[in-house]
Amino acid sequence: MKFSKFGQKFTQPTGISQLMDDLGDALKSDQPINMLGGGNPAKIEAVNELFLATYRALGNDNDTGEVNTTSINSMANYSNPQGDAAFIDALVGFFNRHYDWNLTAENIALTNGSQNAFFYLFNLFGGTFVNEKNESVDKSILLPLAPEYIGYSDVHVDGQHFLSVLPHIDEVTHDGEEGFFKYRVDFDALESLPALIEGRIGAICCSRPTNPTGNVLTDDEMARLAEIAKRYDVPLIIDNAYGMPFPNIIYSDAHLNWDNNTILCFSLSKIGLPGVRTGIIVAASEVIAAVSSMNAVVNLAPTRFGAAIATPLVNDDRIKQLSDDTIKPFYQQQATTAVRLLKKALGEYPLVIHKPEGAIFLWLWFKDLPITTVELYEILKEKGTLIVPSKYFFPGVDVDNYKHAHECIRMSIAADEDTLKKGITVIGEVVRGLYDEAK
Amino acid sequence: MKFSKFGQKFTQPTGISQLMDDLGDALKSDQPINMLGGGNPAKIEAVNELFLATYRALGNDNDTGEVNTTSINSMANYSNPQGDAAFIDALVGFFNRHYDWNLTAENIALTNGSQNAFFYLFNLFGGTFVNEKNESVDKSILLPLAPEYIGYSDVHVDGQHFLSVLPHIDEVTHDGEEGFFKYRVDFDALESLPALIEGRIGAICCSRPTNPTGNVLTDDEMARLAEIAKRYDVPLIIDNAYGMPFPNIIYSDAHLNWDNNTILCFSLSKIGLPGVRTGIIVAASEVIAAVSSMNAVVNLAPTRFGAAIATPLVNDDRIKQLSDDTIKPFYQQQATTAVRLLKKALGEYPLVIHKPEGAIFLWLWFKDLPITTVELYEILKEKGTLIVPSKYFFPGVDVDNYKHAHECIRMSIAADEDTLKKGITVIGEVVRGLYDEAK
Repeated sequence: MKFSKFGQKFTQPTGISQLMDDLGDALKSDQPINMLGGGNPAKIEAVNELFLATYRALGNDNDTGEVNTTSINSMANYSNPQGDAAFIDALVGFFNRHYDWNLTAENIALTNGSQNAFFYLFNLFGGTFVNEKNESVDKSILLPLAPEYIGYSDVHVDGQHFLSVLPHIDEVTHDGEEGFFKYRVDFDALESLPALIEGRIGAICCSRPTNPTGNVLTDDEMARLAEIAKRYDVPLIIDNAYGMPFPNIIYSDAHLNWDNNTILCFSLSKIGLPGVRTGIIVAASEVIAAVSSMNAVVNLAPTRFGAAIATPLVNDDRIKQLSDDTIKPFYQQQATTAVRLLKKALGEYPLVIHKPEGAIFLWLWFKDLPITTVELYEILKEKGTLIVPSKYFFPGVDVDNYKHAHECIRMSIAADEDTLKKGITVIGEVVRGLYDEAK
Repeated sequence: MKFSKFGQKFTQPTGISQLMDDLGDALKSDQPINMLGGGNPAKIEAVNELFLATYRALGNDNDTGEVNTTSINSMANYSNPQGDAAFIDALVGFFNRHYDWNLTAENIALTNGSQNAFFYLFNLFGGTFVNEKNESVDKSILLPLAPEYIGYSDVHVDGQHFLSVLPHIDEVTHDGEEGFFKYRVDFDALESLPALIEGRIGAICCSRPTNPTGNVLTDDEMARLAEIAKRYDVPLIIDNAYGMPFPNIIYSDAHLNWDNNTILCFSLSKIGLPGVRTGIIVAASEVIAAVSSMNAVVNLAPTRFGAAIATPLVNDDRIKQLSDDTIKPFYQQQATTAVRLLKKALGEYPLVIHKPEGAIFLWLWFKDLPITTVELYEILKEKGTLIVPSKYFFPGVDVDNYKHAHECIRMSIAADEDTLKKGITVIGEVVRGLYDEAK
């Protein structure tokens, strides 16, 4: 069959699609696999118990017969394209209770997960623009700090429209120990970008905590980015999938701000519900109106089950409590365990770890590794351990000329301790062997 | 904020978006409204009971802890971009049990509802193509029988790529009564279309039963369309949202076929679960691979709750039983009631009704109505009764020069009898007045 240009973009096999297939197949496989590759959240007993109790309560609470309540009856109706009204109202109350944002329902839209939100936003603010003189201008999404999330790369409906700034790499300590680094935004490079100065940037975007690195941009960095975005009259998009106030997997001292020029994206995935595909956008009403229109055309209306199960948890702040008391400490403990295991396995070798400040990953830098981490990925896969090589986390960067992009891996810390141990043992053996051979 | 060309396409207010807002607002409104406008399925007691029982059973069945079972635990994992593997397996078994299609899991992908499927498919087979000589060719989706579904109109990421064939209109009887008509495909017009002959058609598509008319294309018409599609090497896409084997809202004698050149789209919406947003595509494996890739980029993975709740019903055929024994007879009864009420209200006036053969709508043609049905819509809205005017159901047709496109309305029959009565009373009063004034 003949596919359109749009179709061909999506059907050409890419490194990323191959990788995604590997990860998906591994999850379906009967073979034992040390899955340190995907973005799946951890199984946390207390989390599952709360969701199950909420699920059952919803099923017993169906006798009101009212539309737009949080009863399971809402499955029998389409919501507005903007999303489930009861959940949006709950979120307005929640955010206004915890922050001084003065939101109304016109500031929130729901999407079928965060990826869906970024598909909309990056096409809304990147690609072909028509200026006042009726000329076409190609604008990019500016990523102020690569590496960034792998899932951004392919979302533009026509071509790829990213421009990334490479990081400052600072050696830092973590819990008083050496062997760590932290990425920082290179503001000199950023502010002197011709594309920014000449009006060819459509939006600035970062994930915070960053997927894949676990970096948390500092409040100072965020304030500078917000100021630059305003100065150039483009929105600042913050991918908050791992951030505050839920799932709140963030260990550094950080604050969350919002104003009319900021677009915040939240998700229910990392509190433990990736299968419900529910994303939340908080933005100026004109952005929300645009997202709602895109929802109507692409999806008719967003899915409602995630909204139904989360509404009671948002209404009484249990979602925050769960995040603060259970989810955040769980991942912090996992990060500590993984660092300990890695130091034990590779302490004498040139491994440095990005300072774990949040999210559910560690980002490992094997300095001067004799092979690329794509090759390392293949070797580890053969041995039943899956990680993600760094090359794919640099949208908008010509990685051919950037050695660092071939020396890192993203390792999930969401697995149970046994899997972490086994996986890190394999990584340790292989990487030690590679360095030893090259001596 | 400045939006891209893509964004502007979605943010320009259109007649359709205004209409959708009206319908959505009406559902949220506290005012009593005779809602004969939307596509929401009816509340059917037996249906709701089955879903609730299934819902509760899922919640009690969570102790296996296995991924990819139908337990509610599946919410804690992403599925593959293709969709929930257990549901796909259940569907393969189901279709092969009831039809001789010899499907494998490679022939099925899930989407976040049918609209999402058509967003993918119409962009995959319509828009800019690059031919063997590396030239750009603009191809359209051929709709062999307008009127067609309102939701198709805006789905192309760039422009609009539809070509519609206007119908033959036959006077027919229904249950032995006069006052009905039926649309038939004008194959002479279709086969002599320059765009078809010259290779500027990317796919042929029809909904069956047709939304908005309740028409069911005959087996003969379908066979001819399938033959033409094969002859021109383009797929035949069938929107089966109201069709066999579920929800099976189809009263004429019709059969469902599938082969490698056919793309069948199913939905859980009209069995009563529009809020779960679950669409099903059955197609050649290369189409499924493309849809999976688009799922990955647009949504990461499809939502899983619809899959979880439908899997047990598909596995033991209860979904078919429910459709045959409850859903189909319910709507057939509703159609009979609505026709009776309309004949009573407007029997002496130039109303003809499209023969009700399926779906959840009646399509009313007010011959030589003194005003357009967009104007009629506004008057009815003022009086608290919502229907949808015909103008918006002609994607790819220049309706300015087609009087018939301004003389019809789509009326939902999913409302309860009281609402049907009240709504039809208002329609009767207004339409009688219009004809009487013009005498």
